[in-house]
Amino acid sequence: MKKLLVIGIGAGNPDYITLQAVKALNSADVFFLMDKGQSKDKLIDLRRDICERYITHKAYRFVEAPSPERERGEVDYRASVEDLNLARQSTFERLIHEQMADDECAGFLVWGDPALYDSTIRILQAILDSGRCEFEFEVIPGITSVQALCARHKVPLNRIGQSIEITTGRRLAAGQVSDADSLVVMLDAQDAYHQVADPQTEIYWGAYLGTPDELLIHGKLEDVAQEIERVRKAARLANGWIMDTYLLRKP
Amino acid sequence: MKKLLVIGIGAGNPDYITLQAVKALNSADVFFLMDKGQSKDKLIDLRRDICERYITHKAYRFVEAPSPERERGEVDYRASVEDLNLARQSTFERLIHEQMADDECAGFLVWGDPALYDSTIRILQAILDSGRCEFEFEVIPGITSVQALCARHKVPLNRIGQSIEITTGRRLAAGQVSDADSLVVMLDAQDAYHQVADPQTEIYWGAYLGTPDELLIHGKLEDVAQEIERVRKAARLANGWIMDTYLLRKP
Ligand SMILES: C[S@@+](CC[C@H](N)C(=O)[O-])C[C@H]1O[C@@H](n2cnc3c(N)ncnc32)[C@H](O)[C@@H]1O
Ligand SMILES: C[S@@+](CC[C@H](N)C(=O)[O-])C[C@H]1O[C@@H](n2cnc3c(N)ncnc32)[C@H](O)[C@@H]1O
Repeated sequence: MKKLLVIGIGAGNPDYITLQAVKALNSADVFFLMDKGQSKDKLIDLRRDICERYITHKAYRFVEAPSPERERGEVDYRASVEDLNLARQSTFERLIHEQMADDECAGFLVWGDPALYDSTIRILQAILDSGRCEFEFEVIPGITSVQALCARHKVPLNRIGQSIEITTGRRLAAGQVSDADSLVVMLDAQDAYHQVADPQTEIYWGAYLGTPDELLIHGKLEDVAQEIERVRKAARLANGWIMDTYLLRKP
Repeated sequence: MKKLLVIGIGAGNPDYITLQAVKALNSADVFFLMDKGQSKDKLIDLRRDICERYITHKAYRFVEAPSPERERGEVDYRASVEDLNLARQSTFERLIHEQMADDECAGFLVWGDPALYDSTIRILQAILDSGRCEFEFEVIPGITSVQALCARHKVPLNRIGQSIEITTGRRLAAGQVSDADSLVVMLDAQDAYHQVADPQTEIYWGAYLGTPDELLIHGKLEDVAQEIERVRKAARLANGWIMDTYLLRKP
């Protein structure tokens, strides 16, 4: 039986990797890398580095496949992600059929934790459900960017006994959030923190968390929102891309 | 300057530990263990095991302090936790004053991730704010029980582009939850899943996740709620205590 490992590698610092992930890395024969084009080259390099750093034998190989791109612009977000996932599903099926022997083990290296805003698990389940491929798979958790954010700011994610909501910049911008006392925003391409009504709200913002380029800003929105927008724009320009996450805490 | 490390050790499987945590363990001179009484003895043992397993020198020591207990019963939950934290704050201050030399480094081993429903960070910040002690501290993230739950069930935490709420059994039982499409419930002492209105809701339940005693149940509430209650009661009886977490997903 073919075996697939969905390995969370943590969101930034290579030392975020768990011993479970190191063992998983060492048990894979092949790693499937999805190439997302130039701007994300750094992320592919990082995956290769992680393998080099933590695998203690030489008997593994990489297979790169071009990652299908999501349609941008004025399209329905969910539908565009579903289309993307269908395309990725065919890519994955092809890799599993053509690039693994029957008793081999393949690894997918997932940024952060595979359960958080990532479709690898969903796609593998869809392939199994389709009955077109047979394999077993395992999921290895990894440190998320949310945890990196809290650790670096030395701040608890929740207030005592209160809830936490984790959401997207898109939802915050559209007003589709509850009035959770602690709100974490990911995947924000539009500076959605400007939409928050109460300027006394505290923001803990972090970009490139756990990496040498890490940026941290903390304060009340009324004091730091403009600064975050400025720093964010400059960083995106300098690096060609940005990954940032923030925690909003009610006053 | 004294240095404190708040080290997330992951929520169950000793292999959940990160390389960053292993390095942190190896740099501490002393570990402060809070003894929560017999029923939680296993957790103290586990912390000692983790040190033995991952520390490569012998020059470290443990200091155990009795952990103050939270007042149970008909009290205001938040107030009782705040009282508890004040008591723990004095304990921590005493440990820092009496049990560390000036250039030493002390570690607190925190179950799961220190940012999630844990007060260690909050207490250390309160001590610093009080000005009664000087030290620097660092937070090392760890795999949470939420991630262990998703990994073991091989299920994404969120639906595409949707939010996630993480909350307590107490809040769910009191109806203090939003209508999030994915709701994670922790700290549930009262089988609060029985309060969910829609019996078609899917539940992914896990107890003692990542440990040899791990229990997993998944299905629609109408099909598995009774079974979970039964299994939970039996497990708590057999082990003297239970740790469980679940994800509720709207149909
Ligand atoms: C597709 S999601 C993947 C999340 C990932 N699975 C995790 O566990 O963090 C990508 C989003 O994660 C956040 N992110 C990931 N890595 C980050 C980092 N190192 N610093 C800040 N934000 C990060 C950003 O909000 C980004 O838009
Ligand atoms: C005080 S909170 C601490 C959470 C911890 N900091 C974390 O990151 O998971 C304790 C709650 O975590 C959950 N929990 C912790 N470890 C668990 C495990 N191994 N299996 C299931 N639930 C667990 C339970 O809901 C428990 O009531």
